Amino acid sequence: MEQNVKIIIEYDGTAYHGFQIQPEHNTIQGEIEKSLLKIFKEPVKIYGAGRTDAGVHARGQVANFKHSKSIKPEEIQRALNSLLPDDIVIKRAETVSPDFHARFSAKSRIYQYKILNRSYSDAFMRNFVYFYKYPLDIEYMKEACKIFLGTKDFTSFRASSDEERSNVRTVFCFDCFKKEDLIIAEIEADGFLHNMVRIVMGTILQAGRRKKSIKDLEAIMEAKNRERAGPTLPPGGLTLMEVKY
Amino acid sequence: MEQNVKIIIEYDGTAYHGFQIQPEHNTIQGEIEKSLLKIFKEPVKIYGAGRTDAGVHARGQVANFKHSKSIKPEEIQRALNSLLPDDIVIKRAETVSPDFHARFSAKSRIYQYKILNRSYSDAFMRNFVYFYKYPLDIEYMKEACKIFLGTKDFTSFRASSDEERSNVRTVFCFDCFKKEDLIIAEIEADGFLHNMVRIVMGTILQAGRRKKSIKDLEAIMEAKNRERAGPTLPPGGLTLMEVKY
Repeated sequence: MEQNVKIIIEYDGTAYHGFQIQPEHNTIQGEIEKSLLKIFKEPVKIYGAGRTDAGVHARGQVANFKHSKSIKPEEIQRALNSLLPDDIVIKRAETVSPDFHARFSAKSRIYQYKILNRSYSDAFMRNFVYFYKYPLDIEYMKEACKIFLGTKDFTSFRASSDEERSNVRTVFCFDCFKKEDLIIAEIEADGFLHNMVRIVMGTILQAGRRKKSIKDLEAIMEAKNRERAGPTLPPGGLTLMEVKY
Repeated sequence: MEQNVKIIIEYDGTAYHGFQIQPEHNTIQGEIEKSLLKIFKEPVKIYGAGRTDAGVHARGQVANFKHSKSIKPEEIQRALNSLLPDDIVIKRAETVSPDFHARFSAKSRIYQYKILNRSYSDAFMRNFVYFYKYPLDIEYMKEACKIFLGTKDFTSFRASSDEERSNVRTVFCFDCFKKEDLIIAEIEADGFLHNMVRIVMGTILQAGRRKKSIKDLEAIMEAKNRERAGPTLPPGGLTLMEVKY
């Protein structure tokens, strides 16, 4: 009988060209499908919840795949973890109902963007934070987060090359907080446009520097023009934390 | 006038053949001296507090060096951080008295050894912990730590190739505690023999597996024989946290 298996994936995305499979490039999906081929002796296609970009990390990426072999999810998890490179880890594997689809069944995704805000970098976190040495007004950044809440047109905050049908997304939660020298922003939405978190964060950073006001940010949102928003921050600071169903 | 400068160094040791300079190998000392040569336009030799091995990390390695140029410690720090590879970070630089020597003035060194104790690894911590999936008795490990406290002959816990004058060292503090799935052991001593922490931890691990008793560990210490102790655990789990003066 066909089984539908849901896996929770953690990865350090530094060495990969993103989640989605691409010919001639290392990708997370590519590595997992390569390992599944060894386990099942036949091609197995996985469906991921979020197509994270090159250099973006995940603590709770979700994917699913179907198979008809008599092998338990825990055995698949163990086999995958022994075959995968050590920057990709399967945290859990479980059998789910046949209609579960990691992408289409998702209700929301939670991303974190981390900024290391002090005069020197960190040797251990270097690939997982964006190092920014100029002072930031965290209280003003928290205020700035609020204007992104709710159902809005995020045209100004999407990679200009991106051609999505609709640029309207609903942000359920968005806040940032300070933890020692880190500023951690956490955003939950029903979905994200291409580069949306990184462009939103580049704009929030300008607010933190007091180079843009809350009013400016509202006007940028209204303008529906990518040119008006801040820069796309580097991918290393971004981590897909959780996908909710 | 000659200045004596003390620097606090943090590094991810994964890519290096240890702290101490070696021809034909990447080392922490080698990288720092290469950068100092660029800053001072002449060779500058640094003295490190602890010669960490290949793959061992540091959050608080200390070194000192002398120079006669009119450049402030903060400027040296900034210049070093802009020249060094991003897995080596200078956390602080300050002028100290002429008789300060990072190695000989040190009163104690604190190391941490981290064991990730669960059924699957961690993509982000993979180079900074020793992944061990079998159950460990943390309470028994805490008991085992106690027998290493005080002034003892650590011959059984030193790399057999090592030819030190004396194998007696004084351990001031040694304990381990659990933090989620991590077991963190912290040890402070006046000095350490080659591989001492990694061999002690390999032996403590056997106690945690209940393969060796506290009495066995006492007998191993008495035996003054490397063959009797546990294995040398991998370097990645080990971090030099602090050097006290």
